[in-house]
Amino acid sequence: MDEFALIRQYFTNNTASVTESSSFVGIGDDCAVLDASQGDLVVCKDILIEGRHFFADVDPFLLGHKALAVNLSDLAAMGAKPLACLMGIALPKADPQWLKPFSQGFKALAECFDCALVGGDTTRSEQGIFISVTALGLAEQPHVLRSNAQVGDDIWVSGELGAPKVALELLLLQQQRSLNHAELSLLKATRRRLEQPEPQVTLGLLLKPYVHAMIDISDGLLQDLSHILKASQVGAIVYEEQIPIDGALLDSEVLNPEQRSQAVLAGGDEYQLCFTASLNNRSYIEQLALSSGTKLRRIGKIIAESDLVLLDSKHKVIENLPQGFNHFA
Amino acid sequence: MDEFALIRQYFTNNTASVTESSSFVGIGDDCAVLDASQGDLVVCKDILIEGRHFFADVDPFLLGHKALAVNLSDLAAMGAKPLACLMGIALPKADPQWLKPFSQGFKALAECFDCALVGGDTTRSEQGIFISVTALGLAEQPHVLRSNAQVGDDIWVSGELGAPKVALELLLLQQQRSLNHAELSLLKATRRRLEQPEPQVTLGLLLKPYVHAMIDISDGLLQDLSHILKASQVGAIVYEEQIPIDGALLDSEVLNPEQRSQAVLAGGDEYQLCFTASLNNRSYIEQLALSSGTKLRRIGKIIAESDLVLLDSKHKVIENLPQGFNHFA
Repeated sequence: MDEFALIRQYFTNNTASVTESSSFVGIGDDCAVLDASQGDLVVCKDILIEGRHFFADVDPFLLGHKALAVNLSDLAAMGAKPLACLMGIALPKADPQWLKPFSQGFKALAECFDCALVGGDTTRSEQGIFISVTALGLAEQPHVLRSNAQVGDDIWVSGELGAPKVALELLLLQQQRSLNHAELSLLKATRRRLEQPEPQVTLGLLLKPYVHAMIDISDGLLQDLSHILKASQVGAIVYEEQIPIDGALLDSEVLNPEQRSQAVLAGGDEYQLCFTASLNNRSYIEQLALSSGTKLRRIGKIIAESDLVLLDSKHKVIENLPQGFNHFA
Repeated sequence: MDEFALIRQYFTNNTASVTESSSFVGIGDDCAVLDASQGDLVVCKDILIEGRHFFADVDPFLLGHKALAVNLSDLAAMGAKPLACLMGIALPKADPQWLKPFSQGFKALAECFDCALVGGDTTRSEQGIFISVTALGLAEQPHVLRSNAQVGDDIWVSGELGAPKVALELLLLQQQRSLNHAELSLLKATRRRLEQPEPQVTLGLLLKPYVHAMIDISDGLLQDLSHILKASQVGAIVYEEQIPIDGALLDSEVLNPEQRSQAVLAGGDEYQLCFTASLNNRSYIEQLALSSGTKLRRIGKIIAESDLVLLDSKHKVIENLPQGFNHFA
């Protein structure tokens, strides 16, 4: 099968509206053409590499989903509405058994958010699968940046944390030895959060008018919060007991408290949002959480001193903060 | 060095205006934010893989240049003005000796076309370098598509063809054995066309109002022309003797006529433009070629029958057309 047939077969026939408007050009020309006049253009690009960001034997449908989800999560952190996406993929062979479910997983999520797949590049790699997706969105000014956290702001986080890191550790352990019953239960309860993350696009859109700074916590809560602090030239006090923990981690006896804490504070592959907002918006945000069924928790405050202070349940400072995920560490 | 320091050090401080306008957000947030309201948004993405699209020991400055050039060439084929770009790169280690010249080559070309580097992703690969660049541009309607070639149109091509393919073949040969003097001369005369292609952005902008269909010929002249023909549901007569050949190929005794013909007709990695235009615009296009010093040659005509007919100097049909570059062939 040649490259062009491959692209046509698996990455076309997107149901989104791109082919229905004469001013739009989708897959099949040198470039895609889009109307991006209804707001400022918001654009991001993430890379996923076999053996580093996913296992070679991961379900291709879930991988297709995740390849787009991690980019939509970046749009969510800007409070942007998805507009379109481009798929770059290099793979050792054009295997329909793999490409079909991969493209289905990708397109199913694209349809959820009306985010048309409009182009990209497909090529052969010498070894391993390499995926690079670009997502485009639209947002009105003023934009929600990392650099606008204000002293006195509440710090919030969405969802419940820790499951992706625990699932990853168990999958790595499984490559060494068989898992016992409790470990298998925990893997089953956490694996979907690792392999099929739900980008918080709708939440980002709802929150946008009410927040000062926002980020997705794909590198782990503490590391991504520290990006906000650095960009805003402020510090933070975070109360560890306020940080929402995935129920599966609390129910399991597999993890000791330190492992659980490490997963929640520093585990990567979380696609929840961390944001700061004025106290004046506290009741709106609490109401939004209630009405939308989304978990939103206040976990701390922005302070003037440039430091990230983590307090335990007795408000004692926790030293030796765990390191977040760091690609070149 | 951690990922973030790496990105900051080599891929920031772009001289383009992105950081000077308050409505723009560049590298360092979840997404870049751009004003794309002055035209329709034109977007493309190309992948370059070590061992497939470039040699491991290629000059990193030239590779940085090429990584952007191949994308700007796609914008050129749409007659679009570059707006911004994103760099995705995975590499086995963060080596400053490599990253510094790579980023310099990339940014030097970006500056040439006022195409700000606004974001991307950097990560570690298990093996080999993988580059995925996304380029964004702006173009006014009506757009120059592949699908609008008209029966009776002249077929044109810019530049002189064949050098990239010849350089590639010689570099591959050099991995097998030492090159002789004539081969080394030919490599020296052709190598820059392979490693530092000049995207025809300015030419694309000038041509846009006067052409019906346009494409860059990165997959080789005949293959890319056939994309126009298929999209437009037309055919073509092409006169082989009209096709412009790189002077280095004509001067050298290394190549036999068949090798030369193969390089010119089917050699990939050409970043020239092939386009079709009405006879009414012939004098404008010839004038544009003269005044801009750009070589533009009429090589054939669009016909109604869906076929690509190549004629030799005696107007006899050449059978067995060479195949173009095909990633999964």
